[in-house]
Amino acid sequence: MSYSEFGLIRKFFQQEPLAFSRQFVEMGIGDDAAIISSPESKSICMSMDVLHEGVHFPASADPTSLGQRALAVNISDLAAMSAEPLCFTLGLSMPTVNEEWLRGFSAGLAELAKKYNCPLVGGDTTSGPLSIAIQVQGLVEKSEAAVRSGAKVGDFIYVTGELGNGALALQAMGINVKFADDFSPELNALSDGDLSYLNRQFYTPEPRIEFALAAATLLTSAIDISDGLTGDIGHILRASGVGAEINVERLPYGAALQKSCSREDCIAAALYGGDDYELCVTVPPSQAKELEAIAASQNLRLTKLGEITADKDFLLIHENGKREFAALQSYTHF
Amino acid sequence: MSYSEFGLIRKFFQQEPLAFSRQFVEMGIGDDAAIISSPESKSICMSMDVLHEGVHFPASADPTSLGQRALAVNISDLAAMSAEPLCFTLGLSMPTVNEEWLRGFSAGLAELAKKYNCPLVGGDTTSGPLSIAIQVQGLVEKSEAAVRSGAKVGDFIYVTGELGNGALALQAMGINVKFADDFSPELNALSDGDLSYLNRQFYTPEPRIEFALAAATLLTSAIDISDGLTGDIGHILRASGVGAEINVERLPYGAALQKSCSREDCIAAALYGGDDYELCVTVPPSQAKELEAIAASQNLRLTKLGEITADKDFLLIHENGKREFAALQSYTHF
Repeated sequence: MSYSEFGLIRKFFQQEPLAFSRQFVEMGIGDDAAIISSPESKSICMSMDVLHEGVHFPASADPTSLGQRALAVNISDLAAMSAEPLCFTLGLSMPTVNEEWLRGFSAGLAELAKKYNCPLVGGDTTSGPLSIAIQVQGLVEKSEAAVRSGAKVGDFIYVTGELGNGALALQAMGINVKFADDFSPELNALSDGDLSYLNRQFYTPEPRIEFALAAATLLTSAIDISDGLTGDIGHILRASGVGAEINVERLPYGAALQKSCSREDCIAAALYGGDDYELCVTVPPSQAKELEAIAASQNLRLTKLGEITADKDFLLIHENGKREFAALQSYTHF
Repeated sequence: MSYSEFGLIRKFFQQEPLAFSRQFVEMGIGDDAAIISSPESKSICMSMDVLHEGVHFPASADPTSLGQRALAVNISDLAAMSAEPLCFTLGLSMPTVNEEWLRGFSAGLAELAKKYNCPLVGGDTTSGPLSIAIQVQGLVEKSEAAVRSGAKVGDFIYVTGELGNGALALQAMGINVKFADDFSPELNALSDGDLSYLNRQFYTPEPRIEFALAAATLLTSAIDISDGLTGDIGHILRASGVGAEINVERLPYGAALQKSCSREDCIAAALYGGDDYELCVTVPPSQAKELEAIAASQNLRLTKLGEITADKDFLLIHENGKREFAALQSYTHF
């Protein structure tokens, strides 16, 4: 069956579970542009991610999971700004129209859209290699955006959840991770349960929106761990004009990583792997207790990794007290 | 030379001619998200277009022209809303890093960005098949957005510029246009001057921003002709719950189209071709004179094609008085 772009949009995307109405969305799908507004005290954040088959997800990816992940990784960028999700646009390119795939993909998007009250408001659908471009919009209180440039000397550095799962998951799916040539997890050591845990972590990462909004007034800076912890902390350090020391032995690993990797590979996956979509935040020591209480109330693992320092170096402190410079160019896309 | 995503962004995109500061852009490139705001009386419009090599432009496309076109077609969507350009985001995917290509592409973007005061504020750069996803944001007076649903019975239908150039330009570049199997222009009849005119029309279409902003309070509806006139007018008719009659002999062709095409192919290219990026607008008869005066003051060709009618049909009136139904599914992307 042949589809026009518009027939396809009407059938799979311009529907209630995905394109629902929401306050501050004045006009959604169906015109030359969507129209949104912001309440006077708030600004609008926006962030775009592009995912390609074979680069960011395997050709075999389940379309529903892929829809969930595509929106989740974008919403994670809003969490890193302490912004509340508002709406998203989708640029979907496909070589051919596969109705079953589209049904699954739009259902996955709809699940996340509903969960975060973030409707689809527009975009583009076209013929091309399978790829997904999503731009997400969020609302943030004018004075509360958790930008990268606010880290102060003496601030504590925290990270949510577990690190290294993204790199291990990609490796288990047969997608070559680029952060270390010699990253060689023992994939045979992983049980079906481990693999399905990694699969969930990869396809449905939990954007830390609830935590970020509750902690918004405490944070001096925030970033989401999409490109690897050291590279992402590096962005904060550069933007804030400060340095950092983090304790390698505190890195929070999941069970699957520990089961399948040497100590060196665990550290490498946590420091230089990407795709974890956890939040790394800085807070003044005086706010640390309150931050920890918020995480505890949400049953969210929160780990203090180290501190912001006055000299501009980024140092890793090892168990034996050895100090080394962190490599900042963690995740190379080219 | 190997680049990280961030090194590449800093070198080619996070630079003054492209990522300049602008009122209402609170934070541009360099954080998890850009932050914008809108003055109280205005809303924010946004529109996304994705362009793929081999589908939307030839592999041989000059990168500077491509950068101009990629931003121009998006800004055209803002013109169709009577919105003033604010800023844009770019999702750029490339198989490898080609510095010369990037220099040209970013220069093309910068030229249009400067012209329309529309800086680059963020996006994503990744490895993948060559493709360009752009989302453009604009500001529109809350009551003045030229949406598709406002056309009223008796309104006059106008179109700016010339129609059919987009289809002819694509055909001349060897990209197969899909609107008619038997579209067969006599390409040999085109002079070098004609080809370079078509090339300019294709790569640097003039978004009708100036006209749309000057005419904003007069228009009852507007759309840009990206998918072919009949399909695009069809969107207005469906959204407004009205019909239309347009006079085929009034269609505004350019010289190259007339030189290389039969009468039938001229009509087909104008009605069903795409990629013209002209504006089609409706106005009450009482405002027609003022609309024509605005176009005249801007030296912009403006053609009255017909009228909005009460019955829901979309009719084409031919020279001999023959009336036929317009085919709405003009441009099929799949």
